[in-house]
Amino acid sequence: MFRPEIKVLDCTIRDGGLANDSYFDLQTVRAIYKACCDAHIDYVELGYRNSKAMFSPKEFGPWRFCDEKDLRAATDGIENPGTKIAVMMDAHKAEPQDLLPKSESVVNTVRVATYVKDVDKAIRLENVAREKGYETTINMMAISIESDWELDPALEQIQNETGIVACYVVDSFGALYSEQIDFFVKKYQRILKGKEVGIHAHNNQQLAFANTIEGIIQGANFLDGTIYGLGRAAGNCPLELLLGFLKNPKFNIRPILDCVAQTIRPMQSQLEWGYMVPYMITGMLNQHPRAAMALLKGDRRDDYRAFYDKMLELVE
Amino acid sequence: MFRPEIKVLDCTIRDGGLANDSYFDLQTVRAIYKACCDAHIDYVELGYRNSKAMFSPKEFGPWRFCDEKDLRAATDGIENPGTKIAVMMDAHKAEPQDLLPKSESVVNTVRVATYVKDVDKAIRLENVAREKGYETTINMMAISIESDWELDPALEQIQNETGIVACYVVDSFGALYSEQIDFFVKKYQRILKGKEVGIHAHNNQQLAFANTIEGIIQGANFLDGTIYGLGRAAGNCPLELLLGFLKNPKFNIRPILDCVAQTIRPMQSQLEWGYMVPYMITGMLNQHPRAAMALLKGDRRDDYRAFYDKMLELVE
Repeated sequence: MFRPEIKVLDCTIRDGGLANDSYFDLQTVRAIYKACCDAHIDYVELGYRNSKAMFSPKEFGPWRFCDEKDLRAATDGIENPGTKIAVMMDAHKAEPQDLLPKSESVVNTVRVATYVKDVDKAIRLENVAREKGYETTINMMAISIESDWELDPALEQIQNETGIVACYVVDSFGALYSEQIDFFVKKYQRILKGKEVGIHAHNNQQLAFANTIEGIIQGANFLDGTIYGLGRAAGNCPLELLLGFLKNPKFNIRPILDCVAQTIRPMQSQLEWGYMVPYMITGMLNQHPRAAMALLKGDRRDDYRAFYDKMLELVE
Repeated sequence: MFRPEIKVLDCTIRDGGLANDSYFDLQTVRAIYKACCDAHIDYVELGYRNSKAMFSPKEFGPWRFCDEKDLRAATDGIENPGTKIAVMMDAHKAEPQDLLPKSESVVNTVRVATYVKDVDKAIRLENVAREKGYETTINMMAISIESDWELDPALEQIQNETGIVACYVVDSFGALYSEQIDFFVKKYQRILKGKEVGIHAHNNQQLAFANTIEGIIQGANFLDGTIYGLGRAAGNCPLELLLGFLKNPKFNIRPILDCVAQTIRPMQSQLEWGYMVPYMITGMLNQHPRAAMALLKGDRRDDYRAFYDKMLELVE
């Protein structure tokens, strides 16, 4: 038995781009896109469509902007009719005018990422994207630090003022346990009628896959994963584990296994992600991973005790 | 809130010994034991007390046998009144006569590991250990491949013929999802009256910590972990994550963080454990990790697709 409503989205390049300023070479992006097409993944998110006024193209690679020509170069000649292309726009770092009409773009779906405080910007962006012909989602970042009295009205606004297909529970800090996943999925279902709930989990506490399963059990149908967990800091729910769990026979895990071996693992010599103690500490203390990322770039990266005590000061 | 009945057992040396034939140097064992004492871990399992007739002391290190003199060398001068020493005996590979009377040993607790088919041997060993004065547990290995019609009578025998304090759900293959953890914990609780349920999870699918939490939610009170997840193949539930989750103020995570930095991570240059695709494949197919371990020792260790197809043949 499987649930045909379930949609899997690969965000390897998009989330991984937070670890390398979106500098992936074209060959890598094509290999990942091809693996996902061959595996019959529902969506592949190839990066951000963010504003060049807010991110300098001198400092960030092409997948921070996803110019149409770059998306075409990444996808030309690779196809699976069931695989749609997505880009993410940050509510506070993207401009609606950067969206072409859908008829002129290979993009199918625009995912708007937002903090609760920026929900008005997110709704504006979503409205424009939908008017231009795109399918849309909203991804509520960092909800582990939001209060109900702010989150609930934001979800109600989204319910009343958008036409999204799904709204995501985004555990940006890798701080949530299964109980909280239940709490948020049920809340979304209660407020967002007729819209799907999505799960985007981080692996700070090795719970990204488990929390995604918990979301599935509670009824979430839009599931984010990245190949071999590649993503910022501790990374994400590994796509290969998710495919192993889902029983939908349309998925083929083999191209993803090949991609791990041939494309993703070779990147480990230059890019570091996955479970590490500093990320665990920020996750368990419900903090943004930026302090852990800074620690790991310095020469005291193994002084976990001092880091733990420093982070504790922030929460006590 | 915390549950005072919860007991945490560190089995870094014992389970890790399956990855290096129990060759840890004395300094390493002392460092791990000290970290656990300083962290106020309830139990530290220092190795196996297995038979020298079945394991050659020429091929296996001291922690496969845990001779009393070695245990004393590992623990002398290190103490925490609340931390008990455990050893494991394999039902089919250990001899009751290798147990000293408890009054002559530093060991407090004997954990008997068994497959369902060897439950009579396990009960014999448990009975002798208890007669000699030890606290006992039984650890039912590989239950993900046992049938109810075999497992249930074995549990009933354990209920009627032993005096264990706890019986463990052991997910040797890292194959179980949270639903199955629920199933087994509830089954144990139904059959084993007045005994605690334990959880020993493996990390093939990055679910060891999540499954341990699921066990806690269902009422399991004996929890196994290893520092930084060190253990055979994909390793175990990381002790530091478990301490981060448990709210019992008696635990102190800092000595465990120090131990990761100073003792465990330096071992990674010689000892390989943790999440890898071949272990994921055996886990998701509910197979013993030995085929994956063999693959990883060879020169085709990245040929995941061929390995997956070969393993599929075993289950289809």
